[in-house]
Amino acid sequence: VSDAALDGLIQQLREFARERDWERYHTPKNLVMALSGEVGELVEVFQWLTPEQSTAVMRSERATDVEDELADVLLYLLRLADVLDLDVAELAGAKLERNRGRFPVDEVRGRADRRP
Amino acid sequence: VSDAALDGLIQQLREFARERDWERYHTPKNLVMALSGEVGELVEVFQWLTPEQSTAVMRSERATDVEDELADVLLYLLRLADVLDLDVAELAGAKLERNRGRFPVDEVRGRADRRP
Amino acid sequence: VSDAALDGLIQQLREFARERDWERYHTPKNLVMALSGEVGELVEVFQWLTPEQSTAVMRSERATDVEDELADVLLYLLRLADVLDLDVAELAGAKLERNRGRFPVDEVRGRADRRP
Amino acid sequence: VSDAALDGLIQQLREFARERDWERYHTPKNLVMALSGEVGELVEVFQWLTPEQSTAVMRSERATDVEDELADVLLYLLRLADVLDLDVAELAGAKLERNRGRFPVDEVRGRADRRP
Repeated sequence: VSDAALDGLIQQLREFARERDWERYHTPKNLVMALSGEVGELVEVFQWLTPEQSTAVMRSERATDVEDELADVLLYLLRLADVLDLDVAELAGAKLERNRGRFPVDEVRGRADRRP
Repeated sequence: VSDAALDGLIQQLREFARERDWERYHTPKNLVMALSGEVGELVEVFQWLTPEQSTAVMRSERATDVEDELADVLLYLLRLADVLDLDVAELAGAKLERNRGRFPVDEVRGRADRRP
Repeated sequence: VSDAALDGLIQQLREFARERDWERYHTPKNLVMALSGEVGELVEVFQWLTPEQSTAVMRSERATDVEDELADVLLYLLRLADVLDLDVAELAGAKLERNRGRFPVDEVRGRADRRP
Repeated sequence: VSDAALDGLIQQLREFARERDWERYHTPKNLVMALSGEVGELVEVFQWLTPEQSTAVMRSERATDVEDELADVLLYLLRLADVLDLDVAELAGAKLERNRGRFPVDEVRGRADRRP
């Protein structure tokens, strides 16, 4: 992942929407739904897989579907963050820092029930 | 968004899971569900908002919820991509490139019905 | 909606899974994902619509998609409740009763911010 | 599940919204989001569970959460169908009938890859 790549994606998404006159559709509400719809497609790829099959999914015939849906999720997430004027990578870094405090290693080690 | 930031997040997420012995829970299937759950929380923030209210959400009392959920979505997306050994930013760039071909400006300009 | 219809659906779904030897796939976890995937398809139908367009969706070309996805959501919900041995209609009645107490008319009238 | 129960729920939901002056929020688009949000909460209950744990979820401390979320999903589904003037149980019956044709027992028996 190159830095330029991520900022570049945001710029390209902005231009992509502007060229197609799609900015009018890109309200935060609509983009949240679009993001949700793409995650739904990702869920559909995994829904009948065992945990083991899910781990091996990139060696299955669904590999390109997984790549496709992951890409769509990131694209809509970046576009959503952009129309909200938010730096999602920065927010994620801060959240992860807070999560270290919320889930101290000593208390949660190996316990799924202490997950958020 | 700095490049180092994104790669740094991926590394930190890896360490975060390892320290807590949570790697066992991080099957792709489970992480897809976690991603879906976080997007669900984002949807809940926006569900009753008008389009106009959604555009102004960062000046509302839900602003920090939006930041929080966007962060969670990126964190789980990066973690999922990492366990699948995928570079999601690269995949997104390639997908956006393909979308340019799928949605030619001349054909789709201003038409939501021609969206994916 | 006839009573016999709903109980009949549950029975038919049970038989449908048994005949196809799909019971093995119908863990609650997998069925929750399937339900989520179907709701994702419903979201995709509505994501770019204005509130007004969404109200008129049954007079649009997407009408049969809406019918199709609503049906799928109910089918997976009933199947999920059945494998969990739950009577979802009864649970819904009890929940609605509790909601009357949680959202007293006097306090919440016309306020979306007091919605759950 | 009694017939009267389901029709009764639809009527009660209608009255519930009217009394609170919430009908204005109940556009199909908003209700689809609300439905999606509730399914997201259900997903969160199951996300870290093994298949076996998910099968035993009603004997765990999350049992009431499962009941609660299933109820919410049905309530929003019924409300959504009502504002769209659709009989979702009838649609589900017809869809299940079509699914018998789409997934013939002989072709799909025991094959998750032939699932929709």
